[in-house]
Amino acid sequence: MGPGPSDVPTRVLQALSRPTIGHLDPVFLELLDETQTMLRQVFATDNALTLPMSATGSGGMETCFVNLLEPGDHALICRHGVFGGRMAEVARRCGAAVTLVDAPWGNAIDPDDVAKAARARSFKVIAVVHAETSTGVLQDLRPFRAIADSCGALLLVDAVTSLGGVAVDVDRLGIDAVYSGTQKCLSCPPGLSPVSFSERAAQVLSIRKTAVASWYFDLNLIGKYFGAERLYHHTAPVNMIFALHEALRLVLEEGLEARFARHRQQADALRRGLEALGLELPVDRAVRLPPLTLVRIPKGVDDAKVRAQLLAEHGLEIGGGLGNFKGKAWRIGLMGASATPENVALCLRALEAALP
Amino acid sequence: MGPGPSDVPTRVLQALSRPTIGHLDPVFLELLDETQTMLRQVFATDNALTLPMSATGSGGMETCFVNLLEPGDHALICRHGVFGGRMAEVARRCGAAVTLVDAPWGNAIDPDDVAKAARARSFKVIAVVHAETSTGVLQDLRPFRAIADSCGALLLVDAVTSLGGVAVDVDRLGIDAVYSGTQKCLSCPPGLSPVSFSERAAQVLSIRKTAVASWYFDLNLIGKYFGAERLYHHTAPVNMIFALHEALRLVLEEGLEARFARHRQQADALRRGLEALGLELPVDRAVRLPPLTLVRIPKGVDDAKVRAQLLAEHGLEIGGGLGNFKGKAWRIGLMGASATPENVALCLRALEAALP
Repeated sequence: MGPGPSDVPTRVLQALSRPTIGHLDPVFLELLDETQTMLRQVFATDNALTLPMSATGSGGMETCFVNLLEPGDHALICRHGVFGGRMAEVARRCGAAVTLVDAPWGNAIDPDDVAKAARARSFKVIAVVHAETSTGVLQDLRPFRAIADSCGALLLVDAVTSLGGVAVDVDRLGIDAVYSGTQKCLSCPPGLSPVSFSERAAQVLSIRKTAVASWYFDLNLIGKYFGAERLYHHTAPVNMIFALHEALRLVLEEGLEARFARHRQQADALRRGLEALGLELPVDRAVRLPPLTLVRIPKGVDDAKVRAQLLAEHGLEIGGGLGNFKGKAWRIGLMGASATPENVALCLRALEAALP
Repeated sequence: MGPGPSDVPTRVLQALSRPTIGHLDPVFLELLDETQTMLRQVFATDNALTLPMSATGSGGMETCFVNLLEPGDHALICRHGVFGGRMAEVARRCGAAVTLVDAPWGNAIDPDDVAKAARARSFKVIAVVHAETSTGVLQDLRPFRAIADSCGALLLVDAVTSLGGVAVDVDRLGIDAVYSGTQKCLSCPPGLSPVSFSERAAQVLSIRKTAVASWYFDLNLIGKYFGAERLYHHTAPVNMIFALHEALRLVLEEGLEARFARHRQQADALRRGLEALGLELPVDRAVRLPPLTLVRIPKGVDDAKVRAQLLAEHGLEIGGGLGNFKGKAWRIGLMGASATPENVALCLRALEAALP
């Protein structure tokens, strides 16, 4: 029940350990096609360029920026936690000029601030984190397409902790580039990053003036392995794809709406219980992220000691704070298969026993 | 029996499917330490900066170049197959000026050619492929340290298809940066890339003038997660590390020398059998790579049809040719757990039945 990896269902672990086959084996290629089809359903998109990158979520972040940005491009980046800051750092390393829109940690980004910044000049990319894993804030993405259009930008979204737990709705929201990770609400082990590019983003990629700085993350090349040519780029992580395929099947068997409702219900139950224990939830109710709850560590309580005790006595992991919340808050995850009434009850019992 | 992934032993698949735990869980961190220790043994090095990158072998290649090269640096790259060509492309994308030393595909690089090129100017890096997976050539690395010293260069080596099947001897050979993959002679599924940097390479990394262009592959940051700080960088691919840990245990249980001898013996047996079938091996005996054998496709034989038949009738995968050898040669792998007398016999029987 940390900020990921979440619990992995037995069916996914079994798929993971199927005998390894070749990355050009017809059986594997069919499974890869099915994986892409299911990813499109979970992202709610028709984007052709939708695939799992052979890296963790941060590799998906780098994929989006390094393919879309060229040296000298301008990027407008929203920062209200660790991962917004990381996006800015990655964009700078692509040689882009970065304009930041900040919000205090624990708050959502104010779209009016973004709209204002977007009036100052044109941008190649506007980037925002949908589900800030460092603070447990869910960003309302609805205003962003219009803002991106106002300054001619592509809309780039971090959906690492939302995909599979909260609706992402790529096409309806007009998102141009989005990345996620497998180890959060998809409940697959960490190691892959689902990514999706709109037609418009694919077009921008195809008319770049410079080569993509990263050969490993170059979607021009990777797209040819996932496309009809099946052109070798790198050896696909075969067993991890087996696992993701099964994890996506589980997501779709449950149904997206039912899965999102389960995440909301369990988060509500956890939060009621935490407040009943007298614990404070720093994030405003209106922008709380169902899969991840930020809890203020009460005065006088030893952060590391409580977490070590939960792990030793209850086999329960919760996350420490990151960045501005380091030592000040815990992060409790209810992601994918971990979002159950049993886990909520276990966590509340364990915390009650551990707190003075 | 293609050019990788190789067969994965049951013990490794079982480790792969252990329940996922947190990437900061003390149990996991201990296992990560052990993985580094075992990687040092297999690389035959004391290098502190020895770790598995969260990407496939090509990601390891990018890691080595992007950390060592800055825009404007000069790199001397040996190219005698696909992977030498890929190194040149990756180095160029790092902004480096690349000087190439070529050898015909199927031959080794002539060290005299490299020494001559190294007299023309100083270089930041000399890069060479130890085991060219596209041709089945094993490069003698012994002359390279002195050549690198003659022009002030770091020595960078691709050991993707040698590590665990052929001695790599990082410290004895004076290699400064080396990368491999898990899915070849280590017989672990694809998805991780073991990398090792010498003190000298780590020093060059620490005094860069520019930030490493890739945030995901930045060893300055990743080293802090693997170091005492355990500073979060990205979520480690926990289950893949479980698998690599077990694969390395198997390598060391067998013993490196015994494992290398097994690779040589099975390769010899395969080659005798192939020649007895009247098949031609284009690579000179003196530079043949035990884990991978290049076989010329006889005139009038349909490449794709034979490979499809082997797969359908014998469950046997062999590799097609790459680059200059596309449609002209097959690549038969005897890597890690796949290098057995049973596999040699199966392959020879199946080929005999399939050929006219």
